[in-house]
Amino acid sequence: MSADVDDGASEVVSLLRAILGHDGVIEDGDVLVAYQRDQAGFVSAGTPLAAVFPRSTAEVAAVVKLAHQRRIPLVPRGAGSGLAGGANAVDGCLVLVLTRMNAILAIDSVEHSARVQPGVINADLSRRVREEGLWYPPDPASWEFSTIGGNLATNAGGLCCVKYGVTRDWVQNLEVVLGDGRTVTVGRQTVKGVAGYDLVGLFVGSEGTLGIITEATLRLRPIPPARTTIVATFATLGAASEAIASVLAVSSPALLEIIDATTIAAIERWKRMGLDTDAAALLLVQSDLPGELVAAEATRIERACSDAGADLVVSSTDPEEAEMLLAARRFAFPALEQLGDTLLDDIAVPRGRLTAMIEAVGDIASRYGLTIGTFGHAGDGNLHPTIVYDRADPAQVERAAAAFDDIVQAALSLGGTVTGEHGVGLLKRDHLVQELGPVGVSLQRSIKAALDPHHILNPGKVFEGQDSP
Amino acid sequence: MSADVDDGASEVVSLLRAILGHDGVIEDGDVLVAYQRDQAGFVSAGTPLAAVFPRSTAEVAAVVKLAHQRRIPLVPRGAGSGLAGGANAVDGCLVLVLTRMNAILAIDSVEHSARVQPGVINADLSRRVREEGLWYPPDPASWEFSTIGGNLATNAGGLCCVKYGVTRDWVQNLEVVLGDGRTVTVGRQTVKGVAGYDLVGLFVGSEGTLGIITEATLRLRPIPPARTTIVATFATLGAASEAIASVLAVSSPALLEIIDATTIAAIERWKRMGLDTDAAALLLVQSDLPGELVAAEATRIERACSDAGADLVVSSTDPEEAEMLLAARRFAFPALEQLGDTLLDDIAVPRGRLTAMIEAVGDIASRYGLTIGTFGHAGDGNLHPTIVYDRADPAQVERAAAAFDDIVQAALSLGGTVTGEHGVGLLKRDHLVQELGPVGVSLQRSIKAALDPHHILNPGKVFEGQDSP
Repeated sequence: MSADVDDGASEVVSLLRAILGHDGVIEDGDVLVAYQRDQAGFVSAGTPLAAVFPRSTAEVAAVVKLAHQRRIPLVPRGAGSGLAGGANAVDGCLVLVLTRMNAILAIDSVEHSARVQPGVINADLSRRVREEGLWYPPDPASWEFSTIGGNLATNAGGLCCVKYGVTRDWVQNLEVVLGDGRTVTVGRQTVKGVAGYDLVGLFVGSEGTLGIITEATLRLRPIPPARTTIVATFATLGAASEAIASVLAVSSPALLEIIDATTIAAIERWKRMGLDTDAAALLLVQSDLPGELVAAEATRIERACSDAGADLVVSSTDPEEAEMLLAARRFAFPALEQLGDTLLDDIAVPRGRLTAMIEAVGDIASRYGLTIGTFGHAGDGNLHPTIVYDRADPAQVERAAAAFDDIVQAALSLGGTVTGEHGVGLLKRDHLVQELGPVGVSLQRSIKAALDPHHILNPGKVFEGQDSP
Repeated sequence: MSADVDDGASEVVSLLRAILGHDGVIEDGDVLVAYQRDQAGFVSAGTPLAAVFPRSTAEVAAVVKLAHQRRIPLVPRGAGSGLAGGANAVDGCLVLVLTRMNAILAIDSVEHSARVQPGVINADLSRRVREEGLWYPPDPASWEFSTIGGNLATNAGGLCCVKYGVTRDWVQNLEVVLGDGRTVTVGRQTVKGVAGYDLVGLFVGSEGTLGIITEATLRLRPIPPARTTIVATFATLGAASEAIASVLAVSSPALLEIIDATTIAAIERWKRMGLDTDAAALLLVQSDLPGELVAAEATRIERACSDAGADLVVSSTDPEEAEMLLAARRFAFPALEQLGDTLLDDIAVPRGRLTAMIEAVGDIASRYGLTIGTFGHAGDGNLHPTIVYDRADPAQVERAAAAFDDIVQAALSLGGTVTGEHGVGLLKRDHLVQELGPVGVSLQRSIKAALDPHHILNPGKVFEGQDSP
C-alpha cells in the first residue's frame, strides 16, 4: 500500500484481469461514464477506478476478497434503473456490474420456485416462467429492463403489491457474498421456517450495503386468470378515498391505482382519451379471481365505487379493452414528462391519510408555482407526486428541490415514510435520519458495521458513511 | 463488583425493587420455580436470581440498563407456552416476565391496526378486535393462552398461515428495548416502505436474543365470512399429496391440514368419530371467500380432492357441522397424548416432499418400535410428528430422543428446515448449526454480537453462547 495511487490502481486492475479476464474489467474513463450513475436526479456520482463484470459467484467472491484486502469500495449495479442514486459510483470504487450473471438456473414447477442469477431481467424471468404456467408477481414499472438483483436490492414494489406483496415476500433464499468474500446461503427451501434470524428480509432492500446477492430462489404462483378491470371517476378526493377503503373491505383487488386531477389533465392533453377532466381522481381496480369468481368480485368492486359516489364506473373483461382502460395509468408519468423535466417522488402514508397527502401536494404545488401530478398505488398508500420543472432555470430547480423536500415532510407529518418502494440511496439519506431518529439510525448502523466492518460495500448509500462528507 | 455473590444479588434485588416496587420482584426460590421453564421437554433450565414483572416500557428499560451495567443475563418470558426452551432460565438470570404489560393500547378501525403490549393474550386481542369487525389472523394452537410477545419472539404460525402468513406478516412496527437499555421503534405506520433495513423482520422470531419487545402495532383485517369446511380421506399418501398440490393450484384455502393414519387411529380409539381407519391420510380444507364466492371455491376444492382419488369428500357450510369436522384436527395431539408421554417435533419440508417426509417418519417409528403420529399444516409443508413414549422407561426415553433427531435429519435431507414454527430455543441449537453451516452461523452470530455485545439477552438460546458450555 506504499505505492502511489496510479501504481496501486494499475496493480489492482491487473489482479482483477487475472480473476475476470481482459474483457471482464473496464478502466477506460469514456466507457466508465455509462456505469457511473443510475436514473436518479439531484444526486452526485464519483469516478470509479474500474467497472468489473463477473460471470459467477466465484468471480464475485474473488473480487470482493481483493476489495476487502485493499479496502476498495464496491458499488454493485444491475441495469442502473434505480431512482435514488443507490448505484451511483463513489470515487475510486469498483462498479460491480452483475448483468453478465443473467442465467435462469432452474424452474421448479412442483415447488413453484425459480433459481436465478441477479442479472436476469424481471421481464425475461416473467416470460420464461409463464411457459411453465407460473407467475412471478413483483412488477415494478421498470420490469421490462430492471434486473432481479436490483429489484432485490431495493425491495421493489409495483402495481400488484396490494394483493401480492413486494419483492421481499417472494424470496425463499439468497446466496450472498459477504463483505469479506465469504459466500453464504440465507433462507430456506420451505414456505415456513423459524430456524435463526430472518436474514433474507434483512438483505432484501439493503441496497447493496450488506452483501452482494449472487443467486436467488424466488417463489412463483400459478398464472392467475384474465383480469377484469374497473375504472371509476370521482368529483372529490374524499369520495375516492371512501371508495378505496370500501373496495379493500369487500374484495382483494389485484391492482388499485389512483390518478389525480393534474395527472388526468396531463394525460388528456397528450393522448385525448376522453377522460373526465373535471374529476378530482380516477381509480383503476382489477380483480383476478379464478373462473366464475371474478365476475362476482368485479360486481362488488363496482358497487363499492358507486356507493362511494363515483360519477362514472366502467368495467371490462375483454383483455384489449382492459389494456385501454389501464393505459391511463401507464401514461401517467410519460404524460407529465411532456410538460417539462420531472422529479419523481415516492412516499407512502397510512391509507386513511391518502386524501390529506394528495391535498398537501396540491398546496405545495400552489406555494411553489409548480405543476405536480400525483398518481400511485392507492391500495398501499404509496404515491408518486411528480414535480414538473425546467432544469435550465436555476430558480425552478431550487423550487423543485424545495417542493420535493416539502412533500417528504408532509408524508412524515401524516405518519408516513420517506420512501415507499424506490429506496434511500443518496437521495433520501437525510430524510431517513428524520424518519428513524438517532437511536434508530444507530441501531441500523450497528448492523451495517457488523456485516461490513471496513465499509467497502456501497459506502455512503442509505447512511452517510466514513467515505462520505 | 467486588462484593461476594450473595451481597451482589441482594443489592441487585434492592435496586430492582426501587424500579419495580416490592411486588414487582420475586426472589423466593419456591415461587421462582414457576418461572423457570417453558413447555419444552428434553432441555435443562437454570436457577434465576429473580423474576421481575415490569408494567411499562420505562420499567423494562430501567431493568435492562441495570442488567447491562451489571452484566446480568435477562430471559424474557410471556405465558411460558413455548415448546423449545426459549424461555428457560439460565443460572443467575433475571426472568423478565412481561405478562403484566397486557394492555391493548389502541385499535384503529380505519388503518386496520392494533397497538398492544407484549403480555396481551392472543385470544384476548382476537376477541377485542372482533368487536370492531376486525380480525388478527395469526392463530397458533396456543392462542387461548400464549401472549403476543411470545408469538412475536417465535414468529408463531398456526392454522391459517397457508392463506394469511405467519406472525411476521402482521407486524407493522415494534417498540424494542435494546440490550443497553435504549428504546427504539422499528418499522412504520404504512403498508409499504423501504426506508432502511427491515428490522421488524429481524426482531420477530429472534426469541428474545436481540432486544425486548415492549409494544407492537399489528395489522388487522376485516373479519372474513363464515368458512366452508371440506374433509377428504385418501387410501394413499400419494393421492393426498396430489390433492394438496391441486387444491393449492385452483383455490386459496384458509386452512389445509393433514392427519396421518397413526393419528387417525389414535383419534378414533379415543373419540369414536367414525373416521375411516383404513385411510392413509385425511385432509381438512376451508374456504373463506366472501358472499357468493365461497360456494364456488368449495366446489373447486371438492373437485380437486375427488380428481386426486379421494375415497370420501364431505363438506359443510354450517358452522356447527364444520366445527365437528374440524374436531378431528383439534383432537390430533390430545388423542396421541392418550397413548403415553409425547415428544412433539416441528419440521417443514418443501411441499412436494410431504409424502416422502411422512413415509420417513413411518420408517423411523418402525425402526425404534415407537408410535409416531404425524399431523400438521400441509399447505405449508409444516408437520408435527409426535413421538409417543414412556418417560419412566429410560430405554424408551433414549429411543424417543434418537427418533426425534432422526426426524429432523430426515427433514434436512429432504431440503427442509429443523423448525417450522416452534423455534430453536435450547432444543434445536445443534440442528440449527447443521442447517445453517459454519458461515451461516457466523453471520447470524455477528448480528447477535452487534445488538447484544455483552451477551445478556437470553444468552445461550438459538446459539450456544459465552455463558453456555
